[in-house]
Amino acid sequence: MIVGKASWFFENEPVIIATGVTGGPFEKNGKLAEDFDLLYDDLWMGEDSYEKAHRLLIDEACRIALEKAELTKEQVNFMIAGDLINQITPTSFAARSLAVPYFGIFGACSTSMEGLALASFLINGDGADYIVTGSASHNAAAERQFRYPTEYGGQKPPTAQWTVTGAGYAIIAKQNEKYSEKPKITAATIGKVIDMGLSDPFNMGGAMAPAAADTIETHFEETGRNHEYYDLIVTGDLGKIGRATVLDLLHSKGIHIPEEKFLDCGLMLYKEEQPVQAGASGAASSATVIYGHLLKQMNYGFYKKILCVATGALLSPMTVQQKETIPCIAHAVSIEKNS
Amino acid sequence: MIVGKASWFFENEPVIIATGVTGGPFEKNGKLAEDFDLLYDDLWMGEDSYEKAHRLLIDEACRIALEKAELTKEQVNFMIAGDLINQITPTSFAARSLAVPYFGIFGACSTSMEGLALASFLINGDGADYIVTGSASHNAAAERQFRYPTEYGGQKPPTAQWTVTGAGYAIIAKQNEKYSEKPKITAATIGKVIDMGLSDPFNMGGAMAPAAADTIETHFEETGRNHEYYDLIVTGDLGKIGRATVLDLLHSKGIHIPEEKFLDCGLMLYKEEQPVQAGASGAASSATVIYGHLLKQMNYGFYKKILCVATGALLSPMTVQQKETIPCIAHAVSIEKNS
Repeated sequence: MIVGKASWFFENEPVIIATGVTGGPFEKNGKLAEDFDLLYDDLWMGEDSYEKAHRLLIDEACRIALEKAELTKEQVNFMIAGDLINQITPTSFAARSLAVPYFGIFGACSTSMEGLALASFLINGDGADYIVTGSASHNAAAERQFRYPTEYGGQKPPTAQWTVTGAGYAIIAKQNEKYSEKPKITAATIGKVIDMGLSDPFNMGGAMAPAAADTIETHFEETGRNHEYYDLIVTGDLGKIGRATVLDLLHSKGIHIPEEKFLDCGLMLYKEEQPVQAGASGAASSATVIYGHLLKQMNYGFYKKILCVATGALLSPMTVQQKETIPCIAHAVSIEKNS
Repeated sequence: MIVGKASWFFENEPVIIATGVTGGPFEKNGKLAEDFDLLYDDLWMGEDSYEKAHRLLIDEACRIALEKAELTKEQVNFMIAGDLINQITPTSFAARSLAVPYFGIFGACSTSMEGLALASFLINGDGADYIVTGSASHNAAAERQFRYPTEYGGQKPPTAQWTVTGAGYAIIAKQNEKYSEKPKITAATIGKVIDMGLSDPFNMGGAMAPAAADTIETHFEETGRNHEYYDLIVTGDLGKIGRATVLDLLHSKGIHIPEEKFLDCGLMLYKEEQPVQAGASGAASSATVIYGHLLKQMNYGFYKKILCVATGALLSPMTVQQKETIPCIAHAVSIEKNS
């Protein structure tokens, strides 16, 4: 099952049987609004704090995914999930409502694919029948924790990115006849922490690019696949600067991915006129775009094989204050559809 | 492999081939000082912040474990680990030094057994040859994040617990002839989030007790084992109040574990005269006592079968400020030694 040092092949081909994708007002005005299952009109969502609204996004994404999968929560073995908030409390509190055995994970914005890789391994190895996995972020909860209170109106440089308000969750199950049309997970590559010495928290795309490039290179080396195997290689939230950097880095290593099949979720979510600077970011960026938009595109037949590479910046406000550089990571999961 | 809803049997019996356990000055004066591999004389450990000292505890625990296992870090497939600090930065920064593919996890003080359960599953299912897993905490880093600056000298009630300064790491490998004498992991039960409505962050042992009782009960039900199967059932950091509560809760469900074979790591680490109130806590409590003291005791032949139940309180300072109750969780892993 392990190939090379850090990759897995899933010979039993676990499937994504359903997803639930929720978002906020900014996503409602975005380019992919139709791919969300539920969109809220304001950031409070009827709750009395942004963190409770954050939790609600997760609660509802899980509820919708279960409903679509025609499963009760009692049938689910495990939840594997996380978010960006200190001690991942929105996710843990949602796990309390869901009341299924729970693995909390933290990979910053790489959490979505960390969870999907683990869930796929567990399902593939007969460790569960059904697993719910996903990640989430909330713009205002992230802003006040990582940056400034929004009321302060701090200016942002053009390299900064906009934290997505949303949650993307998927239910992973064993392959069987009923699910033969569902997208299957065939491989994963787990990233190592890469830090090229960048320290600007307002340019995380640039900081994360080397981690994405390293994981893509490792994935190709270890699985024996190359970019021609895939219709699409998509990163999580590199934004404009990070995406260009990854392409350059891969070029310099002799890996020439055509521009048109190398997309970034952070550049897909919002319209040109929305003021998101270098693009979207946050743990919900890859989760909502992959589990919402891209799986739909797969179902429509636009894509057959996608390599999803979620990137995370493993910093905190304290490490920035302590003048640390930004350690980054990326995990890749391969999702395929029978033709 | 899955039994019941939330338990796993590991038929290939992954083994713990080596451990590395580090601690601080309070642990050096504690009851189990001899079971640590490395103890520092002060909380700074030559670093310029408590968080960097926290990371050093992890760096050194991993280095020692690898040295004892006679492995280079290049031979390790994955690191699965976490801690209590916001965005688990001490662990992620240690993962940067170790430079092996990394799964960040967060289960508060249940992190040690969340990691051991996942690592065992991956090794058992041919997902890796070697995995390093563990958890850590640092008293002063935790105090200033979760409570008050130590200089403030805030008073604590007798139900409060003392966060352990330390790191406990283990290397998990496939069973083979060379490792036939090593402790093996035979089963695990993953807990769900339980919240009985307690909201006092200075009585976390009491809050966590129902989660521990639930996981122990589930483990017995799903694996068909009972307390007679084990020489010892040990919880992570329930302290005096939590331990008594678990025994009561289990009694009320007809599970009568004799007092003498039900220990708590949080009550084993320190001497009676050390001012730790209701006992030790923190992600290092179970990790240092299990990977340090208890595995040594197993090697001496005192124990053959231990059920390790690490408990976590999934709160944050913000959830306390927002008047939330405390969601708790416990994961159980069964470690056995060939006689």
